Amino acid sequence: MKFARLGDPGSEIPVVIVDGRHYDLRPVTSDVNGDFLAADPVGRTQAALASGRLPELAGAEDLRIGAPIVRPSAVICVGQNYAAHARESGAEPPAVPILFLKTPNTVVGPDDAVTIPRGSEKTDWEVELGVVIGARTAYLDSPDEAAAHIAGYVVCNDVSERAFQMEVSAGQWSKGKAAFGFNPTGPWLVTPDEVDVQNLRLRSFVNGEPRQDSSTSDMIFSVAEIVHHISQYMTLEPGDLILTGTPQGVAFGGRFPYLRPGDVVEIDIEGLGSQRQEFTAWEARA
Amino acid sequence: MKFARLGDPGSEIPVVIVDGRHYDLRPVTSDVNGDFLAADPVGRTQAALASGRLPELAGAEDLRIGAPIVRPSAVICVGQNYAAHARESGAEPPAVPILFLKTPNTVVGPDDAVTIPRGSEKTDWEVELGVVIGARTAYLDSPDEAAAHIAGYVVCNDVSERAFQMEVSAGQWSKGKAAFGFNPTGPWLVTPDEVDVQNLRLRSFVNGEPRQDSSTSDMIFSVAEIVHHISQYMTLEPGDLILTGTPQGVAFGGRFPYLRPGDVVEIDIEGLGSQRQEFTAWEARA
Repeated sequence: MKFARLGDPGSEIPVVIVDGRHYDLRPVTSDVNGDFLAADPVGRTQAALASGRLPELAGAEDLRIGAPIVRPSAVICVGQNYAAHARESGAEPPAVPILFLKTPNTVVGPDDAVTIPRGSEKTDWEVELGVVIGARTAYLDSPDEAAAHIAGYVVCNDVSERAFQMEVSAGQWSKGKAAFGFNPTGPWLVTPDEVDVQNLRLRSFVNGEPRQDSSTSDMIFSVAEIVHHISQYMTLEPGDLILTGTPQGVAFGGRFPYLRPGDVVEIDIEGLGSQRQEFTAWEARA
Repeated sequence: MKFARLGDPGSEIPVVIVDGRHYDLRPVTSDVNGDFLAADPVGRTQAALASGRLPELAGAEDLRIGAPIVRPSAVICVGQNYAAHARESGAEPPAVPILFLKTPNTVVGPDDAVTIPRGSEKTDWEVELGVVIGARTAYLDSPDEAAAHIAGYVVCNDVSERAFQMEVSAGQWSKGKAAFGFNPTGPWLVTPDEVDVQNLRLRSFVNGEPRQDSSTSDMIFSVAEIVHHISQYMTLEPGDLILTGTPQGVAFGGRFPYLRPGDVVEIDIEGLGSQRQEFTAWEARA
């Protein structure tokens, strides 16, 4: 099942997509939020579809695509979770998951323009598999318990400013990870039954040229291991978002230039959809 | 002016405290949230008090004290912002503010019991001045612009697990900063007109014995400099919380033992009130 949110920022309409048609979810839930995701979203939506309670949303194709979840309570990220990306960053593959946080207001629509921060010279892309939490999660006893806590998967771009992250941060990465809009998310929240999560091709392109091209099978720590690990250190809430790390092929590795105003980033993950962002100058912001 | 929130977790009642009396704020706002803080909270509350629209809240003294603000969209922390604490942590005073994040669900009431995380041997206290944001804040041109973006000040305990923070983190501190309830906040949100913010004594005690005893005059980066700095890297939302660093005298410095079940931490900041938390074993949690 694929959920999405369509419309202007702050007034998105929740929908479920079936055979390319968009059905208005508002008879079931006011939004794709934690309360909805924690209470059998698939079963309730199937029942509402079967009984004809969900009207088709007219003009859906003309609406902006928002992030497919409301602003999470937290965005937790895993660093260096692909061995080749760790190497291009000059680091050994980590022995345990490295965690850092983005601010929740980084989450925006998958095709929204991204403002390059004022003073930035090193804005970079990172295609990542995003995991959306479906149940309050603390102290899982094993990775086997993770699946019951996952509502679905999303495409994310963990946009990063490398000078802010590495050069003026005293080593704490969040300073380069939290500019407004630095986490395009979506287009869809895809439920786990439709996703072979550790076998997905994920790619990025800049101005049509290939950058990243890898598979979630190359993760050092699996999704289940990540959720289990995080749960030992913090409590995840329904609707929270985990970014699971990026493969090699970012500008920070040295083979490609950083983003400049006018550049277009496209990223996709097999089965989860694609994104397209134009990067714009801070001076040109609305 | 002092705002507070009283009642059980999740159903706190917003109040304003005048001459020791608690007045129910609900005729003005449903809660002490970002929308309230962004729209002249002092002026609107004064007007409501003057016109007699705010009833006194009966039995206020018997209610639990919640955090004086709803869960923020982000909690941004400054590391090593007192020179003597940087030294006790084995670090040089930083040249720029070091930023890291806590998850927003760390924010709890000032006197709520704190669960020592499963497996923790190094749970530590940190008294900190908290700054609550009152207006959307991005790209301030100078520290002088910060004051207009601050709604008030709170006492915070930036509870920290040092093994999680330093030993199993690959250097990213948030892993040891984000356990549920690791940010007791309050009792009051005190508006800036009542606070000489760079001249406040702040202290902590464990089982009645003194630990930290310093002044916000010893900060390396002032509140205004911190808000200005953060605004270059992320967008602050009304109701967001900034923790401005802790002075020397924590267990991590080596002079005092870490917290054990049954220990009681008390912290206070001049004019902002005091907190008292019992630390409890994970096995004994509700």
